[in-house]
Amino acid sequence: MILSRIAKKLTRSNGIQSLMEDLGSAWSGSTENIAFLGGGNPAKIPEAEKIYRSAVESIITSGGTLESLLGDYTSPIGSDETRELTAAYLGKFFGTTLQGNQIAFFNGSQNAYSFLLNSFSGTMEDGSFKKILLPVVPEYIGYADQTWEENVFYANLPIVEKTTPHRFRYKLDKTNIPWETIGCVALSRPTNPTGNVMENEDVDWLYTESRKNNIPLLIDLAYGNPFPNLIGEKEPTRWKPGMILSLSFSKVGLPGVRLGIIIADPEIISVLSSFAAVGNLAVGNWGQALAKVFWKEDSLPQISKNILRPYYANKLQTALEIIEEIFAKNKVQYSIHEPEGGFFLWIHFPNLPISNKELYQICKKENVYIVSGHYFFPGLTAQFSHTQECIRLTYCRDRKEIVRGAEIIARIVSRTAN
Amino acid sequence: MILSRIAKKLTRSNGIQSLMEDLGSAWSGSTENIAFLGGGNPAKIPEAEKIYRSAVESIITSGGTLESLLGDYTSPIGSDETRELTAAYLGKFFGTTLQGNQIAFFNGSQNAYSFLLNSFSGTMEDGSFKKILLPVVPEYIGYADQTWEENVFYANLPIVEKTTPHRFRYKLDKTNIPWETIGCVALSRPTNPTGNVMENEDVDWLYTESRKNNIPLLIDLAYGNPFPNLIGEKEPTRWKPGMILSLSFSKVGLPGVRLGIIIADPEIISVLSSFAAVGNLAVGNWGQALAKVFWKEDSLPQISKNILRPYYANKLQTALEIIEEIFAKNKVQYSIHEPEGGFFLWIHFPNLPISNKELYQICKKENVYIVSGHYFFPGLTAQFSHTQECIRLTYCRDRKEIVRGAEIIARIVSRTAN
Repeated sequence: MILSRIAKKLTRSNGIQSLMEDLGSAWSGSTENIAFLGGGNPAKIPEAEKIYRSAVESIITSGGTLESLLGDYTSPIGSDETRELTAAYLGKFFGTTLQGNQIAFFNGSQNAYSFLLNSFSGTMEDGSFKKILLPVVPEYIGYADQTWEENVFYANLPIVEKTTPHRFRYKLDKTNIPWETIGCVALSRPTNPTGNVMENEDVDWLYTESRKNNIPLLIDLAYGNPFPNLIGEKEPTRWKPGMILSLSFSKVGLPGVRLGIIIADPEIISVLSSFAAVGNLAVGNWGQALAKVFWKEDSLPQISKNILRPYYANKLQTALEIIEEIFAKNKVQYSIHEPEGGFFLWIHFPNLPISNKELYQICKKENVYIVSGHYFFPGLTAQFSHTQECIRLTYCRDRKEIVRGAEIIARIVSRTAN
Repeated sequence: MILSRIAKKLTRSNGIQSLMEDLGSAWSGSTENIAFLGGGNPAKIPEAEKIYRSAVESIITSGGTLESLLGDYTSPIGSDETRELTAAYLGKFFGTTLQGNQIAFFNGSQNAYSFLLNSFSGTMEDGSFKKILLPVVPEYIGYADQTWEENVFYANLPIVEKTTPHRFRYKLDKTNIPWETIGCVALSRPTNPTGNVMENEDVDWLYTESRKNNIPLLIDLAYGNPFPNLIGEKEPTRWKPGMILSLSFSKVGLPGVRLGIIIADPEIISVLSSFAAVGNLAVGNWGQALAKVFWKEDSLPQISKNILRPYYANKLQTALEIIEEIFAKNKVQYSIHEPEGGFFLWIHFPNLPISNKELYQICKKENVYIVSGHYFFPGLTAQFSHTQECIRLTYCRDRKEIVRGAEIIARIVSRTAN
């Protein structure tokens, strides 16, 4: 059997696939002595689960709603009615008013990005070749293999700022961006994997440059405002013409539903609708039905404020204390990116004598699942020691798993350093 | 804003999009005096709806199932457990035994095909360029724009057999297929739009030739066995190594759930998993949860036999009687493809003086939605009058809509013929 070039490319190396497969096999194995610090599965929080269950029940008991949900196709990017309700509801969170033709639904925001990134990069209608600017790498692993053409990413190296002895922060470097080669800008805010929440003034600068170059600025708010709103003390992201914002139901605790929401100008939504018709035929109805309940009851911002933010802040604090204590005891050289938002800790081990890929493999043998940082630099050609010396950990796990994970990582890192 | 070449191509012409948008706008408009004979929405059948509701309720009341369904990502193509249960359940319907690694879930079978068709066509890993053979055109509209490269379809003209004065049938023409240029074969059985159910001996011939050429044979069973099993008296399709079968929950009455199931060799499933990770991250959990209930209770084959087949057979009979009576009264020249399976009537108007595209436009102005047949011949270079003279109608609508649609079509066709 011969495969197409694109299929071959995908099967060769695919960070997001190995991550998702780790997640699948970790779940199906015994959970004794496993430290699953790899995936982005949201935590199970009973107070939130109760509200989600009640939303599902309200759909089922509202006469005829379930039958229509199960039995009707909607349009490729969602029903006009739900799109209009969503525009009316979401506008206030983004400092603007929105219309229904500025909203599109997808089976998760990953699904939306597979269409978005291919709309604004690669071989263009005028014959030019444009790249996707990742203004600060590391950036989300799931973008890396989504483009149908190769060499489509331009990774812009960050400025590394040391903030405290064991903390650092990446910052946008505005020099040397080859804007004339760029077809769109893609940023996650908070950034997965680092937890960076870009300053609004830097977002504004990216926006201004994007407008000058007549290209869209994509901001992935999977962990951002208005839900789950894990952005610490930073300012929320706002929408302006030319921006493409992506929201998700996954990180509030509903990844099994697969709902991604795109906010953009109508002409961009129309392009996405063409892709969605071909790739999805229609978007699933469960996510849309839940959205209608949540908008009506204004649930998600409240859940975010009262349940998710305190929960994750507490988890983060605990994880940091455990890890720093264990690392100190084992004399590990390390520095953690300032955890400003999201689910992850991005840890740098300066002068790590093995590669992060090897560290991942050794950890996996001990049932400690981490994500090697090398995946998060698609398109990078410059040398940058962080590509080989960083790992991503989720902090959303049980205390026991964090302890076990930190101990094993510390042992491996300090052993290989000697 | 400049778009990529692929985005531009998709926004230019996209049959499946205009069809799905018609469907969306028809729903949201007044339903008075509308004849919606365009889409493939399954009928609402209360006996079936009751069983589906009860399956949803059993998921919700089974302790913890809903929380896991909502709150856990599964692997890109579904959980190992559900894949294994599905293999064990489905094998018997396809004359074989199946393993979990031969099963993959997608957000609808359209979603699966967007990955499949691009895996086995276009620029190949060895640098050659391969096409998708549509062995009998017309073939499903939704395939046409799914490939990322252009000129990827090879449409094989059928033999047209007159069966009765107002009936005909397309048959596989085995001569002149340029096998050396083909990367895979794609057939829907029953065929959407025609209702053709290819004879098993022709399927066997395609299978043998595909094996000789080391390429996969894709058979789309959206309307086929084992559910909804709308294949009349024809033999069900069987699975053999090298075949890729596609099943869907849509046509049993659950299009809003978005579940497609692929049965194939493990190495093909593995390729699809790479695509799914990138394009979907994970597949939705609702469809998988329903599948587990349906397999356990052996529901779908029974629903198909006892509810769906009698219902659609009756609808078909009624529609044929209405249409033939109205066409005869209006002296319309017409011939209908033998309706062997599926939801549709494929009607040929010999010597139609306007194109089917124009017929669609005129009908739409009168609130009669049909699908122009010209969409269903992707890759056809040969002359074939049927491309301009055929339309597709769904027969699954109310008597009143069929009457109204047939009268308006008859009036337009006979008026323009004079």
